[in-house]
Amino acid sequence: MKTDKYRVRGQKKLDLNEISTDETNGRTEEETRADAPQLQLRLARLQERLYAEGKQSLLVVLQARDAGGKDGTVKHVFMGLNPQGVVVTSFKVPTPQEQSHDFLWRVHAHAPAAGMIGVFNRSHYEEVLVTRVHGQVDQKEAERRFEHIRAFESLLESRKTRILKFYLHISKDEQKQRLQARLDDPSKLWKFNPGDLDERKLWDDYTHAYEDALSATSTDTAPWYVIPADHKWFRDDVISHILLDTLEDMNPQFPEASFDPATITVK
Amino acid sequence: MKTDKYRVRGQKKLDLNEISTDETNGRTEEETRADAPQLQLRLARLQERLYAEGKQSLLVVLQARDAGGKDGTVKHVFMGLNPQGVVVTSFKVPTPQEQSHDFLWRVHAHAPAAGMIGVFNRSHYEEVLVTRVHGQVDQKEAERRFEHIRAFESLLESRKTRILKFYLHISKDEQKQRLQARLDDPSKLWKFNPGDLDERKLWDDYTHAYEDALSATSTDTAPWYVIPADHKWFRDDVISHILLDTLEDMNPQFPEASFDPATITVK
Repeated sequence: MKTDKYRVRGQKKLDLNEISTDETNGRTEEETRADAPQLQLRLARLQERLYAEGKQSLLVVLQARDAGGKDGTVKHVFMGLNPQGVVVTSFKVPTPQEQSHDFLWRVHAHAPAAGMIGVFNRSHYEEVLVTRVHGQVDQKEAERRFEHIRAFESLLESRKTRILKFYLHISKDEQKQRLQARLDDPSKLWKFNPGDLDERKLWDDYTHAYEDALSATSTDTAPWYVIPADHKWFRDDVISHILLDTLEDMNPQFPEASFDPATITVK
Repeated sequence: MKTDKYRVRGQKKLDLNEISTDETNGRTEEETRADAPQLQLRLARLQERLYAEGKQSLLVVLQARDAGGKDGTVKHVFMGLNPQGVVVTSFKVPTPQEQSHDFLWRVHAHAPAAGMIGVFNRSHYEEVLVTRVHGQVDQKEAERRFEHIRAFESLLESRKTRILKFYLHISKDEQKQRLQARLDDPSKLWKFNPGDLDERKLWDDYTHAYEDALSATSTDTAPWYVIPADHKWFRDDVISHILLDTLEDMNPQFPEASFDPATITVK
């Protein structure tokens, strides 16, 4: 699959309204679901090598509006991997202790160790999104934070951490349907937060904040991707393919032994 | 499946040599593998409720000799769960910082939060096993540590953490075959540690240390199970069933909403 078209080019100002939320790239749900087990297996094999090698790591950042599909992506894309090599961190509203530090402090603590895949469900980007929409961070402070973020991500890369950042792109109507579904289904009701309706009213402000943040922080080594996410099966498929391409490019190897196995006998 | 027979009764002195390592409880590999997807699905559904409820947690402790199957258990039993709700911690040789604290300090930091399933690949029990076999901990100190462990686990239970502890029981011959397989297969060689052969020579000392530790710390609320583990498919099946029974007994519920969904309209 060609996934390059979903990548944000940092040079150019991003216009999210120009990007489709419901495209399927000519794929059908049926064929995609049929291909999924094989794709999962290829990911799992590469993950095993990454873990065994113990030199590189992969950080996956997931950002989206409410009901954008972050939880579903974690579940469906990463469930087939060995949980020993995957650490998912869900960032909530910062605690008082976290707030008494710089905005990257709590995130840094969860950077994936060598051999590991780290998944951030929300991330340091909240600090240039929700804070910005609510006026706690102005344009000037946002620019400073973009610079801190670029430097921080570059630090992680210096220790062989590859970074992939996904914005799950849904339409305003799709969000409405998903929020309504949470209200209608008792097994989903726990995910509904009445405050989400207030955020929904700020739809356009969030759009601008995302456009700014993604443009400013999509670099060659830590790119942002805008994933059409109205169709969950398509979202999972595109992300899985980008992970696969990235892991293949990282090309992890089983480590060489420091001894000659032929000289050893198990008694 | 009746799993109670694998449970260690704390009152009675455990004799590991009396317990089969290769029994299959009348099950065949074929039927067990056929049943596995349905079992995984039931576990995943209960896990979702546990996570949604956010009140109770489950801690799974895995201990075994080298090549006993801890990594394989993590991979096969927990892969079908939502990685957002599972945290696997692999305890290695303590770092200097960790050694400058009491032996439960580093473990406590990884106790599963409410809603989560925590998996310990090795655990605080190493501090009454490997240390004891190598004479760093004598009988008296071991007894003191058992008491600290019981008190610590009781503390976790007081915050609604259920604890399940599994000793993966393999025969000495099975270990030999598995270590040899690591030497013979380039994709497994990274798991071979020449030091494992020295530990293998201490087989009986480990047996005694396990018997002591398991007898002293198998309580009603934090039981040990001795899992026949020569057959990997059987090991995974028994553990999955014990998890299932435990989660069913914990009976997590989707939380009630603090609002009436019928009064809310998504605009």
